[in-house]
Formats: sequence, C-alpha cells, structure tokens
Amino acid sequence: MKAIAAVKQILGNLYSSLPQHKIGSAFAPVNIALCKYWGKRDIELNLPITSSFSVALPELGTRTSISILHGEHDRIQLNNQDIAINTQFAERLIEFLDFFRFTSKIHFSVTTTSNIPIGAGLASSASGFAALVLALDKLFGWGLPKQQLSILARLGSGSACRSLWNGFVKWHAGTAADGMDSFAEPMAMIWPDLMLGICMVSTAEKKISSRTAMQRTVTTSKYYNMWPEQVMHDLVAIEAAINKQDFNLLGEVVEANALAMHALMLTTQPPILYTTATTITLMEKVWQLRKAGTQVYFTQDAGPNLKLLFLRKDIALIKKTFNLSSVITLFPSDEYYE
Amino acid sequence: MKAIAAVKQILGNLYSSLPQHKIGSAFAPVNIALCKYWGKRDIELNLPITSSFSVALPELGTRTSISILHGEHDRIQLNNQDIAINTQFAERLIEFLDFFRFTSKIHFSVTTTSNIPIGAGLASSASGFAALVLALDKLFGWGLPKQQLSILARLGSGSACRSLWNGFVKWHAGTAADGMDSFAEPMAMIWPDLMLGICMVSTAEKKISSRTAMQRTVTTSKYYNMWPEQVMHDLVAIEAAINKQDFNLLGEVVEANALAMHALMLTTQPPILYTTATTITLMEKVWQLRKAGTQVYFTQDAGPNLKLLFLRKDIALIKKTFNLSSVITLFPSDEYYE
Repeated sequence: MKAIAAVKQILGNLYSSLPQHKIGSAFAPVNIALCKYWGKRDIELNLPITSSFSVALPELGTRTSISILHGEHDRIQLNNQDIAINTQFAERLIEFLDFFRFTSKIHFSVTTTSNIPIGAGLASSASGFAALVLALDKLFGWGLPKQQLSILARLGSGSACRSLWNGFVKWHAGTAADGMDSFAEPMAMIWPDLMLGICMVSTAEKKISSRTAMQRTVTTSKYYNMWPEQVMHDLVAIEAAINKQDFNLLGEVVEANALAMHALMLTTQPPILYTTATTITLMEKVWQLRKAGTQVYFTQDAGPNLKLLFLRKDIALIKKTFNLSSVITLFPSDEYYE
Repeated sequence: MKAIAAVKQILGNLYSSLPQHKIGSAFAPVNIALCKYWGKRDIELNLPITSSFSVALPELGTRTSISILHGEHDRIQLNNQDIAINTQFAERLIEFLDFFRFTSKIHFSVTTTSNIPIGAGLASSASGFAALVLALDKLFGWGLPKQQLSILARLGSGSACRSLWNGFVKWHAGTAADGMDSFAEPMAMIWPDLMLGICMVSTAEKKISSRTAMQRTVTTSKYYNMWPEQVMHDLVAIEAAINKQDFNLLGEVVEANALAMHALMLTTQPPILYTTATTITLMEKVWQLRKAGTQVYFTQDAGPNLKLLFLRKDIALIKKTFNLSSVITLFPSDEYYE
C-alpha cells in the first residue's frame, strides 16, 4: 500500500491518464556499485539504510518495449521467448505493472531483450526495472523528470534507481518515510581511462538472493551497525578519488567496501558465503599482480564473480592474465553524458 | 619493563632463588580456541581485550627440559637439532628466559621436542611456552600454583596461558593493568564423545603472524568494537552447550566465532585473508555434510587449515570424507583431569 501511494504521489494528475503513444521503448544500462547498497530501512519501498555509488556499464543492459494489451493478462517476452506468468520473473514484473493499471482491465505487453551475460551477478533486475520505467514514461507520455523516474524504478528493485544514467551515479538514501527523497542522480564526473572486466566464476543461479541476504545481514549480524559508518567514509573517499583521478585510492576503497560487505555476510546467522574457491584464487591473482606493480582492484557483488577495475594502459595485460574475452570502457565517449 | 615487574611480583622472594634441581622437564598440550583470543589491550603483557575458551589436544604438544648451562649463551635444541641463537625462534625464547636469570651470567640449556605437525596452525608457541614455564617451575623448585604459572606462560605467548591443562580451559581477560587477574583455569566439564580432526590445507609458513594480524585488526577494523560483545555472547553459549552436551549448539557457536574473526580480518587495512581456495572447498564440504544430516562443524585459526569438531559416532565417516589420517579424542580418559 505504501508503494502504490508513492506512485500516486509522483504521478499526481497523470495517474489515471491514458497512454499517449502506441508503444514506449527504452534502454537502461547495468550498474555496478563501487560503494554497495546493503540493507533496507523499508522493505516495501526499497528504502536503503545508506547511500550508495555506482558506475554504469554503458554497453550492457536491457531494452524494453511496452504497449497496451487488450487481453486477459499481461504478456511478457524475454529475449524473444514468452515467459509464463506464474514464473518468479513474471510475477515480480506483473506486481510492479499493477502500480500502473489505470483500470483493472488493462494489461500490458512487455518485450525485453538483454545483452547481459546470464548469471554474471550483473543485477539484471536493476537494468530491467530502469528500462521498464523509462518505457512506461514514453508509453503514457508522462514526461517525468528522471529524479521521479528513479523513485519509480526503485520501487521495482532498489538498485534500479541507479540504472537511469551512464557514468557515475549516486543514490541518496534519503530520510523521508515515504521515500520521496530517496533517488539517484548522475555525477558530473568522468574518467575516460577507467575500464572494467568481468571475471566469470559461475553462471549457476545464486543459492540465496541478494534481497534475502541483505535482509539477513541487517537482522542477524552484530556487526551491521558499523556498516553505515563505513559507507559514509567510503562515499567521501570515492568521490575524492574520482575528483583527483587517483586510481589507487579509488581501488583501495572500492575493494575494501566489497570485502566489508562480504565480511558482514560471514557474520550473519546462518552465515552467507558467495565466495567460492575460484573467487579466492582470483582475489589472490589480483593481489599478486598489484604487488608486482599493476594497478588492478576488484569488487564483488552478491555472487562469486569478480569485477576488475583497471586503467586503459593495462587492458592487454589484464585481458591476458584473467583470460577475459572482452573489457568494458566505462566512459566510451562524451555522448553518454547528457 | 612491565613484564619483568610482573615476573618479580609472581615469584616474590623466589625471584633470585637458585635452582633446586639439575633439570626441570614438562609436557604441555596444544590448545584450540573454541572462542578465539583476538586483540590485546596490552602488547607487552599479552593482556587480551576479551576472555577466550579452548580445548586441549591431549596427544599433541611439546616436551621441554631445561637446565643451567655454564657458558656464554643459551643453548636451544628443537627436535634434536641445535637452533642458532640469532633465529626468530631462539630470540623469542631467549627474551623470555631473560626474565628468569638470577644473575646476568646464568644461561640455560633448553631441549624441546614436539609432535605437533609443522605448520598446522596449531599454535606451537602456546604449547612451547607452557611447557617451558612448567619446566622452569620444576628446575627452580618454585612449586607455584598453576594460576601463577598461567600468568608467566602468558608473558611468553598469550594463548600459552591456556596450555597448562587438558580438557576445556577458560582464559579470563581480567581488568588489572598489571595482568595479575588475567590467567586461565580448567573447567570442570568433560565431553567423552567429542572428537577433533585437522584438515591440513597448507604447511607453508604464514604470510602474516597472528600477533601482527590481531594487532592490525584492533587498530584498523571499524568492526572490531563489536567483537567483545560477540565473545561475551559466545562464551555463555559455549559453556551452556557443554553443560547440556548440546553438540549442535556448540558447533554453531564455535563456527560462527571463527567466521567472525576471519570476517574482521577482511575489514582490516590492508585486508588479511588466511582462507585459501582449498579452505573454501573444505568449508563447503562441511556444510554439505551437515545438510545431509552429519553433525560436523569447523573452526579456523590464523591460517588456512580447518579443525573439525564432531562426535565419536561419526569418526569413520569424517575420516573418510576428509581423508584424515587420524582424529583426536579430546577426552581420552579420566586421568587427564587433575
């Protein structure tokens, strides 16, 4: 009920407006948190306990088209395949679409294509809900500011609020109970030489969802109460590092932030360990390479895969050392920064 | 200077007494902390921030003989080999022996044999300093209460104060600045079916000593301030589990305690990771086996090896699953509990 109230507050008079177009279509990139979002203060509204900071992977993401369907139920297509409406994927989407049915009879046709490697721990739901909200805005012709769209995306998946922009993005935790001050915004900072590589460890489905894992951390870890202090420190340090283009500082903070999140999960009851033997081997490789003088750092999300941060000058070395098929240029050209 | 003052306070009039015997000889067992000692409030006196709780491995340990040597310097023999006095091993021992030279001219001959697997992370220094203190007591004929000997052993190596007894032992952190209330004592509790197995992952020397690692944790981890609260909880739970002979409760707490210690090390600057890929594989094996109904838990010290806790009924299964050459009966017979 809080979520639908939030939607109504954002849409105002637009709430019951008819679609202005036949179809709305949009792309949203994947985002990787450099300072993690880990813990909610409101589960229904996806309100975070702390702010967080991400960078987009501009080439990877989701394109979604949405139109009105005159039928009995929604129709969902993912990568050219119809998705049964009783699947977890469809149910989560339909629940979100419920916020936007101006009559109970209306249904939607949603067509989504994604070039995200399956199971890479690349938060496909973040990119997916961001693309869906952008597509809805186009379909209905709301013309909402991106800050408002960020709030709507957040209601689908917390980190989706960060996937509306390329480049560096900060999600302000906010303090309001209704979440109206909890949205992301792009940072006016770029780093043309910054590169990211994904070390795929496993594409198997997670044993435990990040949603469940963060909730268990908040409710059972004795150590969680220090996390907000860590985040406050890390956010300041990350912005300072980017402003100074101090890559080693950025890397140290990003790596420490991820390790702390995983440390917290070791202290939950029961403990959560996304790290596998291969993850450890990769971490050791990163540390060995760094000891030998190469500037490379990792971050790790709720899964065993590592994302490597490094600079353009080291592309060849990193690709070879970690056997990467490709690397991602985080700031490919100026056109990405509106 | 604080350490020598502590020694003088304990020995009193005995401090400058002559040896009563030609030789003093004693054995002390290895001990494994079920609730870890991690962090000092006084580095010179090895005073801990929290209490801790251990169980002895009665078959594994150190036998040490000591006698007066009329020579230019101490003579140290380890497993039938002379040890050069400029090695780290000898220097630490000689520094400790300095506390007990009633004239500057006196030197000692120390002969130590150990059946501890090298590099197993079995705190050979704990067993070693405990045996040395017991041997000194016999050589000089002090006849000190074990509580006082525990304080002396602590000055050599913190956890050595727990290696003077078989069975369960609790080290009281104490609060006094001079450490006179920081000693171990045996618990009047036994568990005849309790077994321990050592999973050797690596016998390579540690990259970082536990001494350094715990100090870095105290000084750099934002999360350390919650550790004392964890220990307070875990100590109560461990004693309750032993009193009730509730093995699952014991295992849950012991495993969580070890994981929390290693989690803290991930949050130090720079991070410390004793866990290797093989450690993770073993942890997963323990969890899988437990999921399948076998009561087995692990603890991990400042190294990659795991120590498994289980019950007598599962000896065969555990030995086979983890390919152990032997397992240790923690409470082999009544004679061990004086």
